[in-house]
Amino acid sequence: MLRNRTDTLPGMRITALAGGVGGARFLRGLRSHLDRLDDGPHEITIVANTGDDITLFGLRVSPDVDTLLYTLGGDIHEGQGWGRANESFTLQGELAAYGVEPQWFGLGDKDLGTHVARSMWLAQGSTPSEVTARLATRWGLPDQHVRLLPMTDAFVETHVVLDDGDEQRAVHFQEWWIRLRAAVPAQRFVVAGLDRAAAAPGVLEAIRTADLVILPPSNPVVSIGIILLVPGVRDALRGTAAPVVGVSPIVGGGPVRGHADACLATLGVEVSPSGVAGLYRDFLDGWLIDSGDAESFGGPAGLTTEAVPLLMKDLPTAEAMAAAAVDLGLRLRNRP
Amino acid sequence: MLRNRTDTLPGMRITALAGGVGGARFLRGLRSHLDRLDDGPHEITIVANTGDDITLFGLRVSPDVDTLLYTLGGDIHEGQGWGRANESFTLQGELAAYGVEPQWFGLGDKDLGTHVARSMWLAQGSTPSEVTARLATRWGLPDQHVRLLPMTDAFVETHVVLDDGDEQRAVHFQEWWIRLRAAVPAQRFVVAGLDRAAAAPGVLEAIRTADLVILPPSNPVVSIGIILLVPGVRDALRGTAAPVVGVSPIVGGGPVRGHADACLATLGVEVSPSGVAGLYRDFLDGWLIDSGDAESFGGPAGLTTEAVPLLMKDLPTAEAMAAAAVDLGLRLRNRP
Repeated sequence: MLRNRTDTLPGMRITALAGGVGGARFLRGLRSHLDRLDDGPHEITIVANTGDDITLFGLRVSPDVDTLLYTLGGDIHEGQGWGRANESFTLQGELAAYGVEPQWFGLGDKDLGTHVARSMWLAQGSTPSEVTARLATRWGLPDQHVRLLPMTDAFVETHVVLDDGDEQRAVHFQEWWIRLRAAVPAQRFVVAGLDRAAAAPGVLEAIRTADLVILPPSNPVVSIGIILLVPGVRDALRGTAAPVVGVSPIVGGGPVRGHADACLATLGVEVSPSGVAGLYRDFLDGWLIDSGDAESFGGPAGLTTEAVPLLMKDLPTAEAMAAAAVDLGLRLRNRP
Repeated sequence: MLRNRTDTLPGMRITALAGGVGGARFLRGLRSHLDRLDDGPHEITIVANTGDDITLFGLRVSPDVDTLLYTLGGDIHEGQGWGRANESFTLQGELAAYGVEPQWFGLGDKDLGTHVARSMWLAQGSTPSEVTARLATRWGLPDQHVRLLPMTDAFVETHVVLDDGDEQRAVHFQEWWIRLRAAVPAQRFVVAGLDRAAAAPGVLEAIRTADLVILPPSNPVVSIGIILLVPGVRDALRGTAAPVVGVSPIVGGGPVRGHADACLATLGVEVSPSGVAGLYRDFLDGWLIDSGDAESFGGPAGLTTEAVPLLMKDLPTAEAMAAAAVDLGLRLRNRP
């Protein structure tokens, strides 16, 4: 419930960790909210999960980065939340005709333009940070005062060890998520390459020097949870002077979208706003939960919690949620 | 002029060296002609020029191989002679939006499916021969008794040293051919990598053991001329017991299509059926020229020449040309 709105800070610098669809929709709402405030421009730095990146047909696909680009850039497929509006699938149909697998990951012709450009620039020696910045320019993010950073420039990939009987096998996260619809229990998540990863340039600084850090309602295990595993990120969140405000991705006992319940089950964490808050308890200052969960919410202790409507059904509702997160953060800053 | 048709051989094995559009149209006519003959199936082995291959957007494009695949596979853009029928250019439009150059080479979404598959398979360790065979399967070439071989598995690329004043510069053949429309004089052609190239598996054997070798009306300098530079190919043509029959790409003092005149000028060769025959004189047995060139044709001496209509305006005219080439070859075989 939004109450008396706190004053802004001049030129706020907000840093957000984000996965794909939920994160992107929330951040589009945040951008829109900040544009209405005085004392701008206010800047957003997004640290994007790249743990679910995948190489398909020899092309490097970065699903969360792309969803953020297309959503903030204004050409997302609104219905599905990922991919491009008015998309065609001609090229992938050709690959199918050549007998090329897999076909369970839908890559449209427009979307493939991004992957071809990314793969070419990476092959030419650019880092993922540089590639992301170049892609973001086309989508007008710098003009919106949005800086999009991959969590790391290292090659990392989340794989899922399946719990399907005697035989253990691991599949890429995307195969588990899309082809198997997370219906086969995951015994654990293994992020290949993360042990050798360093945070991408600017990531730790953006967390440490922000005025406010926000965790959008992204998947707490395979999106934000992976970013938290990048060496230095969790320490930066613990050490930052900025309030850290999170938005629960669990509403009414289940995920608003996606398979966060299956992911939480793998960690043995309760599928509830308190369960998720527990994952962030060492650095979380403020926590937004859904109005409907206010009565049942049970902790953790010492966390400033506020209940607001958490269903992003359109831009205005996303904007209201973002406004609540910013206001909570500003109140936490002003707390004696 | 077709005269009394010679009998066929049972199960003829015909080997052809070919470039793109002209070669592909002729070979489609040849395939159609052979299907009408008795004593089949008659087999065609095509040795395709890969000298004008190019890497665009990180993808390996093999224009002559692709034109042969699409033409024989029945999905060529008939009007332009290259590329796919009913093509869209969505992906390349995205690359343009990202500021990616070059844009002078048109790559459609269907066509890009071939390049993505090829590039992926090459990156996985397949040879160009293996990749070509895999692509050809989808287009039904094995079922048509057509075997398509790249001239070499080595990475070769034709570059053009431009003759444009004081400063010498070299551009990729495709840039000279497409962007510059061969309007800037070429001082010379340099085929990078050809010195280290070997003929692809099966190429030399197909020339040596054929019943008949045909040179379709492909560009004698930058298509067939490049294949002839692959070590061993020219010797195989000189040594084969099969008659070698060529079809003039020059009709009425100019190329039927493309910029063969500019290419011949670079070599200092006359733009005429005799000029081209001179390039092949050490191995050519039979030569088809256009009816209109019969009077002016001047040699080389000792070459069996026949004048027939050489304009391939549709499948029947291509078929008639192919029939003339086969008949001439068979008569040369039966010559005492």
